[in-house]
Order: sequence, then structure tokens, then C-alpha cells
Amino acid sequence: MEDIKQIGIIGLGLIGGSLSLTLQAKGWKGKIVGFDASEEHCQQAISLGIVHEISAPQTWQNCDCIIVAIPIDAAEKIMPSILDSISAHQVVMDMGSTKASLCNTVKDHPKRSRFVASHPMWGTEYSGPSAASSRAFEGKSAVICDQEASDADAVKLVEDIYKALGMHILYMRSDDHDVHAAYISHISHITSFALANTVLEKEKEEDAIFELASGGFESTVRLAKSNADMWVPILMQNRDNVLDVLNEHISQLRKFKSCLEKENYEYLRELIYQANSIKKIIH
Amino acid sequence: MEDIKQIGIIGLGLIGGSLSLTLQAKGWKGKIVGFDASEEHCQQAISLGIVHEISAPQTWQNCDCIIVAIPIDAAEKIMPSILDSISAHQVVMDMGSTKASLCNTVKDHPKRSRFVASHPMWGTEYSGPSAASSRAFEGKSAVICDQEASDADAVKLVEDIYKALGMHILYMRSDDHDVHAAYISHISHITSFALANTVLEKEKEEDAIFELASGGFESTVRLAKSNADMWVPILMQNRDNVLDVLNEHISQLRKFKSCLEKENYEYLRELIYQANSIKKIIH
Repeated sequence: MEDIKQIGIIGLGLIGGSLSLTLQAKGWKGKIVGFDASEEHCQQAISLGIVHEISAPQTWQNCDCIIVAIPIDAAEKIMPSILDSISAHQVVMDMGSTKASLCNTVKDHPKRSRFVASHPMWGTEYSGPSAASSRAFEGKSAVICDQEASDADAVKLVEDIYKALGMHILYMRSDDHDVHAAYISHISHITSFALANTVLEKEKEEDAIFELASGGFESTVRLAKSNADMWVPILMQNRDNVLDVLNEHISQLRKFKSCLEKENYEYLRELIYQANSIKKIIH
Repeated sequence: MEDIKQIGIIGLGLIGGSLSLTLQAKGWKGKIVGFDASEEHCQQAISLGIVHEISAPQTWQNCDCIIVAIPIDAAEKIMPSILDSISAHQVVMDMGSTKASLCNTVKDHPKRSRFVASHPMWGTEYSGPSAASSRAFEGKSAVICDQEASDADAVKLVEDIYKALGMHILYMRSDDHDVHAAYISHISHITSFALANTVLEKEKEEDAIFELASGGFESTVRLAKSNADMWVPILMQNRDNVLDVLNEHISQLRKFKSCLEKENYEYLRELIYQANSIKKIIH
């Protein structure tokens, strides 16, 4: 990080804001400029210490790195013009939850090699500058995709940023990333949304239902608070993978349904034993 | 709690163990005797300070209250003989996750009025005495079912115990409890089990998939570690209600599927907005 004197962040919400606050909390002393399409977010970002200055990305010639942390549909829209505007020593990175579509959009851009596609595997169900945390990212994985399409110095700069945040770095093809993200992130959001809607539907008849809600319910349903502006574009862009996983998930649920319908409790027990082996993965 | 000098706990796992440790941590000074079908659990319970003494429930004439904290199928099996064995001043309470079947089993027992059916809405995905916590239950709801079938002094004693744990108490019919529990607890477990199996299925092909697992995934899938010995009987006993909710949940998931298939992103956004209103319930 000692080579990095100034960064510019487009999008001062949960992810961009947390990146800035955590880098500062870890002791990085560089200058941080920022921009957000929401005037309110810009003001909050200044008062929360997320950025030192709000300015237009077109004026960021002094930034070593421009970090794009906005919903992926918006990122895809502005990325070509950001690449148009940078000079040869600058690096652009994004932090979006899908990678193949964005990488495809910029693949023939003359400055493609100054762009590094990445995805830090951290987030919460909250959004906006006020949700940003100075203790984010630590101990989680950051994925860098299609690294061979980026210049070595650009990749190194992005690695340095993620390492400064305390993350460990994985490398994969953007296509593979999107398949994996569908399994370990996108489907969790759909099940939470659907579970919330299942219970909210019932609540129309029965007021008291939520008085019983316990920790287990809260944990499976908390992602249902996630922001539609972020998630609709993710599910759109990763539609094919998400549909594959959703079909598999519905068919796994149908196995539970069939066990109950047929009163086949031996098989139900087996399904639960199988599920228990998730213990080896999450602790 | 000052009237209660001695309690006996059948089942020294997560729930029975946490009840004992939390009562002691809150300053209750009475004697606690216990029993567990597992010899290993009995030894652990002694060494962890969960009980002062292991003895047979038939010898618990000095207990003001006998607390049954074992899987609900086992509870239902032993409850009639426990009621047979108690004298008129003793109280029996259970802590199981379904209530209608047990209440039905004992409804004509001559000592039915000494039994209080209850369900504290607290738990974790772990089991056994070693999972017991001295900071359990606090701030959660405890449900007392069919209270009119129990003597007033018996209900008061059970209320005193739950209040001593820091819980607030709800009253409902056992049938209603089971409907509500299907919505805010049992379905969460099924979705977690099914989600774990969905991802574990994919893992057979792809080693790397779990390297990306983040907090969101862990939170939706953590209940999948839950014990089959506890959950098969719950899902058996609450079969009809759970099937209703599971059918509703699958149809909610199908709405997401259909949005993606038809690329109807306006409706997808609406479904997410609907789900977001879970915010008013969980904070």
C-alpha cells in the first residue's frame, strides 16, 4: 500500500464506504476522494469520514486507483467511459457480485489491461454510507477474475488493497466465479426473500405470529432485508446460473416434502444427516 | 423462584443444560438433580456444573418441579409414567418444540392438571451438555399452552422459572402454537437443510465452491447443523402444518423462478420489496 497515495471511490455505500473506513482504520494515510450519484450520500460520506473530498471522477488524474462500488448494472454502464478517461498508470477495479457480464463488456476496450475485475466476499443486508463499517472484509476471501487480462502491476495494486483489508485472495475465471456465487450467495438471498414472503403472507391472517420469532428464524431471514437496487441486477446478470441452482434447491425441498407426505421418516433422517455435513464447511 | 427449593431435569443437553446453567447464573441457589439416557451426558453434566447429582426420576419426590427437556417423541413416551409417579404438590413441565400431540397424549391423565405444556423460543444448532450456555433464553419468548388445563399454582411456578430466565411469556392454544412454530421455526430448518444439500450436491463436482462462502451463506445455512434426533420427531409431529408452510414456501420460490425465466424484472423487484417489509419484524 505504500505506493498508493490516492484512491477515488465511485459509490459511497456499504461496500465503498466500508472499504474506505477499513483502510483508514488499518492505518493507511493516503487521500480518498469520492463520488456518489446521491447528493445525500455524498454529504453523509463527508461527515462520516469516508472521503476527504467529493469530486467528479473525470478529475481524478491523481488517483492511483479508481474503485467502482455501485450496483453492477450501473458499473457496467459507466465502466467503458471510466476506462476512456484514465491515463496509462492508473488502475480501475470494481467490487461487484457478478463478473462475467462486466468482463465481457470491457473485453475489447483498448485499456482493458488497466482494469481488474474483483469481488470481495463480504457484505451485510444493510446499505448506504451509514451502514459502512471500519471493521469490514477482515478474514474473508476476495476473488480476482480473469487476471491474465490485466497488467501485472494493476493486479498487484488490487492485491495490495485486499491484503491491507486482511483478506485472502482467490483467482478464478469470471464464468466460474458467477457459478460459485450463485451457489454460495445468490441462492441464499432468494431463499431468504421467499421465506420472508411466506411468513408475511401468513401474518395477514395471524397477528401473533412474529411474537414467537427466534434466533433461527432471524438468521435465515435476515438477508431478506437486502436492497432491491443491488439484487435485481445481480439476479438478472446471473440469471442462468441462479436458475440452475434455484431448480436444484426446489427439487431438494421437494424431497423433504415427499418424505413428509409419504411419512418416510427414515429418508427424512438421511436427508438431515446429509445436510449436517455442512459442518465440515462452516464452523 | 423463592418457593422452589429443588428441580429435577430429564435430558441434560442444550436445553436442559442451558436452563440449569442460566438459573444458577441468575442467582438461584436451589438443588438441581438430573437424568439423561446417555451415561456420557450424565458425566459431562456433573463436570460442567449442570446438575449437583444424577439420580433416577422415580426418586425425585423432593423436587418442586420436574422439567422434561428431551426430544419430543421421547417426551411423549415417558410423560404418562412421570405423571403417574408424582405427588399432588409436584409440577411437571416440558420444553418441546411441538405441543398439540403431547397435550393430546396426556389430556385424560388423572394428574393432567399438574402438567404445564411450554416451549421456550430459544435454541442453537448445537446439542449435548457441552453446548449448554449460562446466558440462554434472555429476552426471548416462552409459550405456555392450554394453561386452563393446568392448576393455577403449577402455571405460576412455570411462569416464575421463565421469568427468572429473563423471558416474556405468551399464552396460546397448543394447536395455534404448532401452526406458528411451523412458520417461524420449522420451515427455517427445512430451508437450511435443503440449502445445505443443494450446495453439497454441487461440491461433488467443484472443490473450490466453499472458499467463497461468506457471512450471508453461513447465516442461512447454519441451522442445517441441527440434530436429526431432535428434528425428525418435530417434523413428524407437526407434519400437517409443516407441509402447508412448505407448499407455500415452494410456491413463493416458484414466483422468483418464474420472474427469472420470463425475465420479468419488474415483478422480481416487487417480490423483493415485499420481502423487505420483514424489516418491521426483525431488526
